[in-house]
Amino acid sequence: MPVPDGAQRPLDAASFRTHGYALIDWIADYRETLSSRDVNHATTPGAIRAQLSACAPETGEAFDAVMHDLDSILMPGITHWQHPGWFAYFPANSSYESILGELASAGLGVQGMLWSTSPACTELETHVLDWLVHALGLPAHFLSTNTGGGVLQDTASSAVLVAIVAARERATNFMSDAKGIAGANSALVAYSSDQAHSSIEKAMRIAGLGKDALRLIPCDATGSMRMDLLRARVAEDRANGCTPFFVNASVGTTGVNGFDDVGAISRLCCEQSSARPIWLHVDAAMSGTAALCPEFRFVVEGTERADSWCFNPHKWMPVNFDCDAMFVADRSELVRALSVLPEYLRNAATDSGNVIDYRDWQIPLGRRFRALKLWFVLRSWGLVALRNMVREHVALAQDLAARVQSSSHLQLVVQPRLNLVCITHVEGDAATQALLERVNASGHSFVSHCRFGSAKEGVDRYVLRVSIGALATKREHVEQLWNLLAIH
Amino acid sequence: MPVPDGAQRPLDAASFRTHGYALIDWIADYRETLSSRDVNHATTPGAIRAQLSACAPETGEAFDAVMHDLDSILMPGITHWQHPGWFAYFPANSSYESILGELASAGLGVQGMLWSTSPACTELETHVLDWLVHALGLPAHFLSTNTGGGVLQDTASSAVLVAIVAARERATNFMSDAKGIAGANSALVAYSSDQAHSSIEKAMRIAGLGKDALRLIPCDATGSMRMDLLRARVAEDRANGCTPFFVNASVGTTGVNGFDDVGAISRLCCEQSSARPIWLHVDAAMSGTAALCPEFRFVVEGTERADSWCFNPHKWMPVNFDCDAMFVADRSELVRALSVLPEYLRNAATDSGNVIDYRDWQIPLGRRFRALKLWFVLRSWGLVALRNMVREHVALAQDLAARVQSSSHLQLVVQPRLNLVCITHVEGDAATQALLERVNASGHSFVSHCRFGSAKEGVDRYVLRVSIGALATKREHVEQLWNLLAIH
Repeated sequence: MPVPDGAQRPLDAASFRTHGYALIDWIADYRETLSSRDVNHATTPGAIRAQLSACAPETGEAFDAVMHDLDSILMPGITHWQHPGWFAYFPANSSYESILGELASAGLGVQGMLWSTSPACTELETHVLDWLVHALGLPAHFLSTNTGGGVLQDTASSAVLVAIVAARERATNFMSDAKGIAGANSALVAYSSDQAHSSIEKAMRIAGLGKDALRLIPCDATGSMRMDLLRARVAEDRANGCTPFFVNASVGTTGVNGFDDVGAISRLCCEQSSARPIWLHVDAAMSGTAALCPEFRFVVEGTERADSWCFNPHKWMPVNFDCDAMFVADRSELVRALSVLPEYLRNAATDSGNVIDYRDWQIPLGRRFRALKLWFVLRSWGLVALRNMVREHVALAQDLAARVQSSSHLQLVVQPRLNLVCITHVEGDAATQALLERVNASGHSFVSHCRFGSAKEGVDRYVLRVSIGALATKREHVEQLWNLLAIH
Repeated sequence: MPVPDGAQRPLDAASFRTHGYALIDWIADYRETLSSRDVNHATTPGAIRAQLSACAPETGEAFDAVMHDLDSILMPGITHWQHPGWFAYFPANSSYESILGELASAGLGVQGMLWSTSPACTELETHVLDWLVHALGLPAHFLSTNTGGGVLQDTASSAVLVAIVAARERATNFMSDAKGIAGANSALVAYSSDQAHSSIEKAMRIAGLGKDALRLIPCDATGSMRMDLLRARVAEDRANGCTPFFVNASVGTTGVNGFDDVGAISRLCCEQSSARPIWLHVDAAMSGTAALCPEFRFVVEGTERADSWCFNPHKWMPVNFDCDAMFVADRSELVRALSVLPEYLRNAATDSGNVIDYRDWQIPLGRRFRALKLWFVLRSWGLVALRNMVREHVALAQDLAARVQSSSHLQLVVQPRLNLVCITHVEGDAATQALLERVNASGHSFVSHCRFGSAKEGVDRYVLRVSIGALATKREHVEQLWNLLAIH
């Protein structure tokens, strides 16, 4: 059946060029005019959908019509994560270089599931992740040239799931791989602080271990896992016949960017020489990027014996989502836990054992050429420019923290070590929440919240979080935010 | 520390425009000249890495230098999945529209983890997936306006893992969510054909159920799961005190595109009225796209009571990887199995219960604006053009199959129902493998293989697979392939 008269045909190369240039301009215009937009949307549920046609069109429409609807229907329902006044959640930096990397990857449209299905895709990834081991000051056992290696996951959530599955298999000597968790000899238990990311609980549930098997250890007043309580709980679990198999160390936590003592946790994980060591996974999702700067290397301290470590270049390092860099100390453990080799994927390179097939390092089989955007950013920026970006954000955060400290109506929840400033109002939760609402109604700044309180105090306070890390954020934007916060 | 003299600075808007236009041209040129390249690489392990510098650069480099290395170092190690002679594995169509959709998504750089973090991102996804329910002739219970709804996963591997986790929780009345699989009352067992995708075994292992709990049921001579054997195994498992909780139906299988009888499986899943129904998941990864055409609606037959159904627009439908469309009959089961709501993600819209937060429909927390590329393709192509593409590929495959049938030295392994032609040489495995090697040495065509044999025959043959579905593939390219296959 021919395409009916009057219908558009799919884009050909010439029209792709035309619309492609226009879209490049659209993105540049968007970025350049971001500060004139309200950072947050003012949409009510269903308002976007109500403007979309009930069914997919039978015949093709002009690409300009689609772009028109993007502007008129969708854009009013967008929260602008690239806005200079973005202080909510975490930075999600999508630099121009990474956008071009994503574009090139989509243009090539190759599958990196096996080395053989595009060797460049695998080799660039392995290589660039080795670059990051050096650039971040991570221990050498994470290098692919040693027993370890790096892999790009979509998110830190997937990284921790992969780590938990590998740890589970190591702890059960690969019994649960065949027989399931029900076949394990004793109850496996895992540990994180009660401030650790929700993805750990989610991974424990997905992995069939259950959320009750995750021990949430309280934190001290800085948001760091209490080592005395961790040590006591591990001992108690062992005494009760459970098998501690996994600890997640957060550097830093999502709520207040608290830092666990990775070195002390690492020693605890290894101290029972009769048993297999407890798998130590380090989640440095946002703060990992800071380790590019020698003065912030506390972020990677104590990592020498960690089994896995991950951070998100798609947060503070300017690589667009999704891009989580995960490193493992022993790649064979990961591969053994996740490998399936059906006949239709067999090939000479895999059989030779001389190549990495990244399908065995992740949950999905398929994977796109994510390393390209990371490579584009590292090459085009260089480490100096990345370090400068980190230092600028940290300096802005430290300045803001100093102002909070000298104010009469605001308090710091913890002393910020990097770029996250956590604030409460002296008059309590309602006042802090009112302050957040005032900021978010401004249009020019957007913040989010958490709850935090040390176990000792028994108080759980509503906290206004100011995360300073968007690429576009400059001193003037923090000033603008401060002008709102400073109103008594 | 300032960026040193002579170093490049990160791209600004003006240079992004320049390099963006150039990259758009680079992609268009690549696509237009693809047929002049060898479809497969000729790379040896390590050859790409050896050309890359040992460390990330300290100072930024010119973007042109990066593009130069993309051409000179990486491109020789690329397997060209968009090549017109791409007949291997499965089609991985990255149309111009979807490339632009991916570009727009990267340019916006928004997070769709919650409705509130960009309502347009969530609402467009829900809406466009409802479009697909109509367009594919799927049952109405998969609509978001009913109890179900659609979600974009990265891959069918993740979709089946999510389905298995939800099924596991339903079967244990959410016991294993808290207590882990060890807390389940009886052994949970799952079923698929022995031709089903390897991701099912992988998901069973990740979910802590173990690969031994997956019953691989033999197929008939067409690659369809033997219903008599499935029925017998379910009965045997029940008699032994196991709990059948999950069946994967393949439409079609990866190896030879065999189709399970979804209707018959569905009846089996529901027939024990005393127990909870067995969760029926349907994996239509490649062939789902064919259901756009009324004459190929056998692909969705029998789906009325399926709990989940997925296909990959990133395969045959021209949406670039990653884009798996998953539909569930009861979204509350999925959300209950996967939801975690930490304080830092709480917001008024979520609390109202009136919005979808897609973080609860998937493994990761974060997610990008994938619906944009699907929407671009559906709008710009229209359903008629998509159907025409499917029909053209199927016609080419049927023609090739007829030639194989009339040849003296080749045989069809199964009668192709759609676009996959599976061939053996009459002289046996070695001859078939030699034929594959001849094709893949040609440079202009690239095929892959599987093994297939009916259980009855007890023969497992080496099979040359010709998957016809690349956007660029026209009659002349299949002719070129046939000229190689036809040599006796």
